[in-house]
Amino acid sequence: MTSRVVLSPDEMPKQWYNLAADLPKPPKPYLGPDGKPVTPEMMSAIFPMNLIEQEMSTERWIDIPDGIREILMKWRPSPLHRARSLEKALGTPARIYYKNESVSPAGSHKPNSAVAQAWYNKQAGTKHLITETGAGQWGSALAFATSQIGLDCKVYMVRVSYDQKPYRKVMMQTWGAECIASPSDTTETGRKILAEMPDTPGSLGIAISEAVEAAVSDKSGETKYALGSVLNHVMLHQTVIGQEAKVQLAKFGEKQADVVIGCAGGGSNFAGLAFPFAADKIAGADIDIIPVEPYSCPSITRGDYAYDLGDKSGMTPLMVMYTLGHDFIPSPIHAGGLRYHGMSPLVSAAVNQGLMAPRAIHQLECFEAAVTFARTEGLIVAPETSHAVAAAIQEANKATEEGKEKVIIFNLSGHGLMDLKGYQAYFAGELADYELPQEDIEGFLAGIKGFPSVD
Amino acid sequence: MTSRVVLSPDEMPKQWYNLAADLPKPPKPYLGPDGKPVTPEMMSAIFPMNLIEQEMSTERWIDIPDGIREILMKWRPSPLHRARSLEKALGTPARIYYKNESVSPAGSHKPNSAVAQAWYNKQAGTKHLITETGAGQWGSALAFATSQIGLDCKVYMVRVSYDQKPYRKVMMQTWGAECIASPSDTTETGRKILAEMPDTPGSLGIAISEAVEAAVSDKSGETKYALGSVLNHVMLHQTVIGQEAKVQLAKFGEKQADVVIGCAGGGSNFAGLAFPFAADKIAGADIDIIPVEPYSCPSITRGDYAYDLGDKSGMTPLMVMYTLGHDFIPSPIHAGGLRYHGMSPLVSAAVNQGLMAPRAIHQLECFEAAVTFARTEGLIVAPETSHAVAAAIQEANKATEEGKEKVIIFNLSGHGLMDLKGYQAYFAGELADYELPQEDIEGFLAGIKGFPSVD
Repeated sequence: MTSRVVLSPDEMPKQWYNLAADLPKPPKPYLGPDGKPVTPEMMSAIFPMNLIEQEMSTERWIDIPDGIREILMKWRPSPLHRARSLEKALGTPARIYYKNESVSPAGSHKPNSAVAQAWYNKQAGTKHLITETGAGQWGSALAFATSQIGLDCKVYMVRVSYDQKPYRKVMMQTWGAECIASPSDTTETGRKILAEMPDTPGSLGIAISEAVEAAVSDKSGETKYALGSVLNHVMLHQTVIGQEAKVQLAKFGEKQADVVIGCAGGGSNFAGLAFPFAADKIAGADIDIIPVEPYSCPSITRGDYAYDLGDKSGMTPLMVMYTLGHDFIPSPIHAGGLRYHGMSPLVSAAVNQGLMAPRAIHQLECFEAAVTFARTEGLIVAPETSHAVAAAIQEANKATEEGKEKVIIFNLSGHGLMDLKGYQAYFAGELADYELPQEDIEGFLAGIKGFPSVD
Repeated sequence: MTSRVVLSPDEMPKQWYNLAADLPKPPKPYLGPDGKPVTPEMMSAIFPMNLIEQEMSTERWIDIPDGIREILMKWRPSPLHRARSLEKALGTPARIYYKNESVSPAGSHKPNSAVAQAWYNKQAGTKHLITETGAGQWGSALAFATSQIGLDCKVYMVRVSYDQKPYRKVMMQTWGAECIASPSDTTETGRKILAEMPDTPGSLGIAISEAVEAAVSDKSGETKYALGSVLNHVMLHQTVIGQEAKVQLAKFGEKQADVVIGCAGGGSNFAGLAFPFAADKIAGADIDIIPVEPYSCPSITRGDYAYDLGDKSGMTPLMVMYTLGHDFIPSPIHAGGLRYHGMSPLVSAAVNQGLMAPRAIHQLECFEAAVTFARTEGLIVAPETSHAVAAAIQEANKATEEGKEKVIIFNLSGHGLMDLKGYQAYFAGELADYELPQEDIEGFLAGIKGFPSVD
């Protein structure tokens, strides 16, 4: 009775899938400070042209270069597991599957894009890559990827996570990268924020500003910036996940998924699993696709669908997305990777066009789900991933109530071995749920009222 | 160009391989305090009879029950990688392979035996399992295994590792187990040692004494003890590793391994990879088989081959093994899993009969090798495993000098994500090599002179 389907390395997809080609309404362009569409040349200050082409592409399929496939094949295709022990514990008629992205060297899905970005940068002559990281998953992934490709790497890490997870820094150092707590005194942005709020826990928005500023201040052109989520090319690189999952589900004998789930901070692990299924939905399949976010950072479920900055201080273009406003600083929940004010423009467009139904879940329910999962399936998941586990359990219980044999699949985006402090706090009863007051949200959203409207 | 061979779950071995059946000279019996061979009945105070039968078996092949295979197949067979990036960095003509046991839920090879022991205990009516752990790998593995099987679990963890790795405890707690620092005030042994040496870092020998004492003090018969290494049945359960590796090497097109390497503390990961190759060596194949230990705990390279206790206070029988004496307390090196005064009797017999050539390596060379490995192959290994990596690099460099295309395989017994404090200390220049003075060894060995002689 098999509970896991593995594919051989050469069964890894040879192309990425681009949802932008299939969205019923095309995504809105990025805008510059002048309100005009951003040109590739404007973006070339921070990204190499080969990645900018991908960012703006509407081609449905894009070839994965062999140099990237060879590195990804060190651990890909990742396994697809059937959660038989969890199903049994829940007594559900649903069949629950999870795609195990925790098997990568960095422990999450993030290397799928980190390797691609490092490779394209190397091709374009980049010598130094700078990025930011929330929970540390992306920073670790880029440190790993640059060591594989042969680039220098510097990572700005959101202070609250830097303090909660000191060993993330050691991990990056082991791969040869430098890791700096953000806000820091190494950038204008950081110094300004530290002067105003010396005790700030930091945010992804602030860290992005610092990383972009550090990248553009090297005028040699040899330093570029890399982003681990949000942007179209990052979503693209992650679509190997969903493509593999569809092949593996078929090998389990499943004709279709009924429910597809991923946690969503910037959107990349969710998009990686969901976009290839969204293509089927656009073509007529009946699938519930659910991005799951924390109640304390509810960008899709309570934010505006609007033009906003990707960062705190305006180093990025304006993008249409679900957002809580770029001034938003979330409470320091342990799922650091979900602490982002906005959401991938492609995920946002798909939600806005009715392809996906977002859901917010409280922290305590997520940790409870993660412990149930550890004691049944045996894997200790990242706090981010626990949101997907909690939603999968909700959906399985719904299937039980309805008496339906649904096929539920979620993305196990990363393991929690670097996040055990969160579990420790949960067991000690130190964690609480946090609901963001509506007036706070309205306050933050007031900061984006001057931007162009979507329509 | 493939660098990884995966097998499907149903290609996992269906039998364990027992080296005791093939050793040129049969292993010596375990002796009781009276100097007479220990009977199964005497061992039944701490182990269930089904495991005692395995411990004493000389059958060559022993069937793996389906209930055990089903759980192991959640991650087994583990991948075999070819270390192409490391080979390139070393400029060696050798082909280096590693068996990746870090993919298990607990992050090491240990669950291979933990699942089997929990399953056999469950069959025999055990309700509570008690064990000890050094680095935490075994304790985590048994916590995972008992949660899969449905048993209570208590773990005595060597204090130095407990302090160095607080999150190991959280990991065990997540799987529902209790973890106690050893020596503790919960046993006679612990209280006595704490009274004499309140600041002791502890040792595996002490922790074993505590765990055995705690198990035998429950007179209901529902509490048993489990050991993660040393004993014959543990070596047996690990032989799935080497069996899979031989199939995978053949799929890489290799006819034979020339050098087989594993780190050795109690001996289980080493035996798991090496014993199936040792069978070929006994049958005439030309293979160098190398157990690697730390210079600071050199049981095989500098200890006596003699009858000694498995623990500190005499709760175990006398076993013939390479030993530094049961009073030996090693320096607190970061490779906690290698801090054991003795060595598996089966591994010891194989070394004594010339089948294997042990080697000791200093701590700094091991960490240097681990960093080289992380920056080439991408995986951050456990400090224990770094000893195998260092030996593989030594052997690859030797092949370069000799201009030989050797096939080198080592066991990547576990990842280092719970051990980053060791890497941090290494980067900070806080680690030093430590060579044990000969007079210290002689002092500890004086403590076993009264035991029966081997001949």
